[in-house]
Amino acid sequence: MNIRSDLLKKSINTIRFLSADGVQQAKSGHPGLPMGTAAIAYTLWMNHLKINPVNPKWFDRDRFILSGGHGSMLLYSLLHLSGFDLPLNELKNFRQWGSLTPGHPEFGLTPGVETTTGPLGQGFANGVGMAIAEAHLAAEFNKPGYDLIDHYTFAIITDGDLMEGVCAEAASLAGHLKLGKLIYLYDDNRITIEGSTDLAFTEDRAKRFQSYDWHVDHVADGNNVEEIDRAIISAKKDTRPSLIVCRTQIGYGLPTKQGTEKAHGEPPGEEELLQAKQNLGWPSDEKFLIPDDVRKHFETIKTRGMDEEKKWQELLGEYQKQFPGEAEELNRRAEGRLPACWEEALQDFPPDMKGIASRQSSGKILNQTAAVLPELMGGSADLAPSNKSWIDGSSAFQDGDRLGRNIHFGVREHAMGSIVNGMAYHGGFLPYGATFLVFSDYMRAAVRISALSHLQSIWVYTHDSIGLGEDGPTHQPVEHLAALRVIPNLNVIRPMDANEVKEAWISAINRRNGPTALALSRQNLPTVDRQAYAKADGLHKGAYILLDSDSKEPDVILMASGSEVDLIIRVGEKLSDDGFSVRLISFPCWELFEQQPTEYQQSVLGSTISKKVAVEAGVRVGWEKWTGPDGLIIAMESFGASAPAEKLFEEFGFSVEKIYQKIKNHLS
Amino acid sequence: MNIRSDLLKKSINTIRFLSADGVQQAKSGHPGLPMGTAAIAYTLWMNHLKINPVNPKWFDRDRFILSGGHGSMLLYSLLHLSGFDLPLNELKNFRQWGSLTPGHPEFGLTPGVETTTGPLGQGFANGVGMAIAEAHLAAEFNKPGYDLIDHYTFAIITDGDLMEGVCAEAASLAGHLKLGKLIYLYDDNRITIEGSTDLAFTEDRAKRFQSYDWHVDHVADGNNVEEIDRAIISAKKDTRPSLIVCRTQIGYGLPTKQGTEKAHGEPPGEEELLQAKQNLGWPSDEKFLIPDDVRKHFETIKTRGMDEEKKWQELLGEYQKQFPGEAEELNRRAEGRLPACWEEALQDFPPDMKGIASRQSSGKILNQTAAVLPELMGGSADLAPSNKSWIDGSSAFQDGDRLGRNIHFGVREHAMGSIVNGMAYHGGFLPYGATFLVFSDYMRAAVRISALSHLQSIWVYTHDSIGLGEDGPTHQPVEHLAALRVIPNLNVIRPMDANEVKEAWISAINRRNGPTALALSRQNLPTVDRQAYAKADGLHKGAYILLDSDSKEPDVILMASGSEVDLIIRVGEKLSDDGFSVRLISFPCWELFEQQPTEYQQSVLGSTISKKVAVEAGVRVGWEKWTGPDGLIIAMESFGASAPAEKLFEEFGFSVEKIYQKIKNHLS
Repeated sequence: MNIRSDLLKKSINTIRFLSADGVQQAKSGHPGLPMGTAAIAYTLWMNHLKINPVNPKWFDRDRFILSGGHGSMLLYSLLHLSGFDLPLNELKNFRQWGSLTPGHPEFGLTPGVETTTGPLGQGFANGVGMAIAEAHLAAEFNKPGYDLIDHYTFAIITDGDLMEGVCAEAASLAGHLKLGKLIYLYDDNRITIEGSTDLAFTEDRAKRFQSYDWHVDHVADGNNVEEIDRAIISAKKDTRPSLIVCRTQIGYGLPTKQGTEKAHGEPPGEEELLQAKQNLGWPSDEKFLIPDDVRKHFETIKTRGMDEEKKWQELLGEYQKQFPGEAEELNRRAEGRLPACWEEALQDFPPDMKGIASRQSSGKILNQTAAVLPELMGGSADLAPSNKSWIDGSSAFQDGDRLGRNIHFGVREHAMGSIVNGMAYHGGFLPYGATFLVFSDYMRAAVRISALSHLQSIWVYTHDSIGLGEDGPTHQPVEHLAALRVIPNLNVIRPMDANEVKEAWISAINRRNGPTALALSRQNLPTVDRQAYAKADGLHKGAYILLDSDSKEPDVILMASGSEVDLIIRVGEKLSDDGFSVRLISFPCWELFEQQPTEYQQSVLGSTISKKVAVEAGVRVGWEKWTGPDGLIIAMESFGASAPAEKLFEEFGFSVEKIYQKIKNHLS
Repeated sequence: MNIRSDLLKKSINTIRFLSADGVQQAKSGHPGLPMGTAAIAYTLWMNHLKINPVNPKWFDRDRFILSGGHGSMLLYSLLHLSGFDLPLNELKNFRQWGSLTPGHPEFGLTPGVETTTGPLGQGFANGVGMAIAEAHLAAEFNKPGYDLIDHYTFAIITDGDLMEGVCAEAASLAGHLKLGKLIYLYDDNRITIEGSTDLAFTEDRAKRFQSYDWHVDHVADGNNVEEIDRAIISAKKDTRPSLIVCRTQIGYGLPTKQGTEKAHGEPPGEEELLQAKQNLGWPSDEKFLIPDDVRKHFETIKTRGMDEEKKWQELLGEYQKQFPGEAEELNRRAEGRLPACWEEALQDFPPDMKGIASRQSSGKILNQTAAVLPELMGGSADLAPSNKSWIDGSSAFQDGDRLGRNIHFGVREHAMGSIVNGMAYHGGFLPYGATFLVFSDYMRAAVRISALSHLQSIWVYTHDSIGLGEDGPTHQPVEHLAALRVIPNLNVIRPMDANEVKEAWISAINRRNGPTALALSRQNLPTVDRQAYAKADGLHKGAYILLDSDSKEPDVILMASGSEVDLIIRVGEKLSDDGFSVRLISFPCWELFEQQPTEYQQSVLGSTISKKVAVEAGVRVGWEKWTGPDGLIIAMESFGASAPAEKLFEEFGFSVEKIYQKIKNHLS
């Protein structure tokens, strides 16, 4: 350590009290984590973290995650001090309307914030996705002498993270994959909201991580910079992911609250904070104090970062000369640009009454896409053969094969969700995760964050209704379409046939600022003749007229999604035979339809003259919006049952005859 | 072992081939697990499991969980052979419409099925709840010489369970709580759907469970009854929960599929099955074969069980004489009867304009309820001080204190959900679990199963809208009310004030056949004067007229739930001042309202003459059903933001003035 010891101490206290002042000013927030981990964060950022505050998006930067997002003031303090575009005034406006400093860090809002954290365990698992991204890109693009992709993923993690199941799942996979550039600093403060961790969390954490094949190290004093530094250096050398258990004191410095749950989630109070400052020899009369020498000291992070990026850009320049094709591709990937006309690689499906399950056609489109978009990478939570989510031309991403584009996530839906998000945060990928639609419940917290953070995560959900048959109600989604549709900014697409599947994938891949969930059938769906019916690219408008009657206002409008579109086609034929004028609407995506101009919406849904009928093998909630007051909704009213699929459709009222009769009754 | 070795072998093969024949007949299902674990199941059921097939609900029976529910034919075979009321014909009707043998075991449908399993990890965590239930009841009711509550919880668990986060959470808590009567037999077949566990699951499982402080033992040959027996005996003696790692072969006996993923989830095929029978010396010409001596041998389970229950009933008889009060109470608890007029213990809240947060009033009602219902037991996922979920008169349930009624679940929402379900499965409890509403996402799979299995689990969700303020969008539920409402058979209640909170708890506790989720505010809600407004017991009808205009058909009907009811009251006053006739509806629970007769629904919602307005600080989906075609829905259109609550309500349009203006525009 060549830094004067008092400057070091002052720098750590600056972080500590900027954070505490922010919380106190907001009269809301979490002082305990920043005050307890200030020295850890200081050591990491000052001595190790490769970042360029002037260019927060430098592609080869180290990623830093504050997994305990409640300690957000720690991150905001570090970002401000290091020279990111986050003025001190923003720290003073912590947790206020319109500020860049919300209660928990939000990706996309604040420069330098790499992940949205707060829901515990998410940041931990995101980091695993980032480390996968780094390892894969390095294998793809690095050449001897050109380690263009070569960075660490660091995180500060908490007791709360370690208790969450998603973290256990992700840690097990990270150990299996030997993600050696993953280094996590564990804020072992032994305090949770309800009190001591002795109340509920007495497992041997170190031993648990050893069982996952992690490198585990200990820092006895979380305020000891040298000890922390040594542990990070040693972690960097290890080929396994690293957990550094740092013994800390929550709310370090607070005279009565330090080391207790009272330091966790409420402002310290003016008097308590004043005494903490006195305890630690801090000038107590000024808030948000940054001594000049401290400010200058932190500038070294910026200077070093600018220098490091400059060297990297020079290396990239050389690489460009040597490997122009690879360089162009790397730039494209880093910038998240799609190749022009990439969709042309996808083939149409010819009409076929026998048809093909939409999970099957999805598998074909996925593979055609993968052939032209190397950034497509993902896998399934141990259901690849069922989800049809395997990229055939590639291998599995493993310790010994970093080029593999297929990830065996194991039976770990939640971690899969957060890891896919981590790859999206990192950049350079179109990541996807697959499972049965019913198990979207297991990973819902991750899906929500993909929507909140505007990540282009793609969720491939197969076995999308009672149509999965014999596995029964534990495996049959009935409420899941509805439950996903209510998440803001998530597109839920349920294609009716193979050609709509193709358009659904195009929609998901061209949607650069948000996630898409695909709902796909287990059972065969006829591929309709697009000469006789409207083209499948109507999907991009969310709903479109598949076939119309001659009359301007049909007697009845039938609408459905996915496997039920075939039913309304056949019911429509019977009604036409009876002399009714019928319009058929394929309605694969509510969210896309809601974005259309009112005129388009009206042109599809018609006026109130027409009777409207919606058919979907899921719960009815929300269809009222489309069918209107006199509408008829044919939907699931309960959980499913175990029996062959055809039997279930019949028993639950989804047969041509039953639907036809219901509509006839409704029309008369 | 005093059983002839060939009878033993025949018995195991009977289980094996009953299961395989069932799958082959259904042309659907999972033969691998039953064929691989038949000897384990045999040993456990024949030598250890304390059950009475004639009385599947005997209260002190051992609980058996098949956590890998896909192996359901194993369980059905055991139930049939042991003499439960499950005829052989039901096994032949495996996975057919209306059978008692669905694809995955369903609680409440099939006699002897203790838990609904299939979604992996759930059964594992349910068992932890059962073991908590057992330990607590034993402490409550046993007396020296009267160990009335004294049973084990056994499970067969799988690789899939062990990979799931919910299992990691539950295992850590079980170790912490030293639940010594929990004994899990791990089907270590090293195969998952995607192939070898080496692909994604190479952690040291034994070491992981040792880190949780479990007793870990090994069975080298999962077909060796003596070895299995020895391990179970030794596990019973250990004071820690036990994991017995049994090395097995998936699909044992199948000539080409044994030990591969092909044995997991598809029928073996006629030829393969025939050869398996030949391999294992099984008469290959008959399906569903149960040799006479095997049938007789399995009768010992029934005989022993009847005898054991008889002795237990005699002991209970003696206990009744010695401790008549305790005996009566134990019977009441075991039968799930509530004391008469228990609601009288709950107090009304006087009118109070300043009001009280509904999480606060919930805490009061919870405690008043706990005072008269000792079966109320639960806790929070480390948010008790925020959720107000602590039972004041009691301690925490711990290793050293089995009488505690408060459970520190730790930051483990998913395990909390499944453990609460496990207590409900066990019987004798009104279990509850609490967290922030937004984190219902983390435990959604467990909530779904509580609804599917008709469990009386009570979910206490606080901080129910943007009203939680500064913590921001990661912590603000906007879609969660809607997402919970779509789960069939789940009542979601969002009370408007303290007196509705009281009624909500009454509703939850009197609902014996299904779960209830309570959505409660962080912020204060005025306690309205029930002399001026309708009584709060209207809540039991889901929605009710809080205040009506004189005119039969009001100009406008305002409806809201929870914190937004106060807003419509104030908006209603302004509209009345303007000369409009106004009806106010408190709408705390859609599901209860849907169960009311049409006449009642119409009497509340009025005809189409009235304009209808719904106000809720959540997404709009579904409100269309109540507001009708010309309705106005004032709802959240996006995620929330980080700022003080009042600011958020104002900015997102939930102020009296903004709502008033919107309605005025709508009316004109």
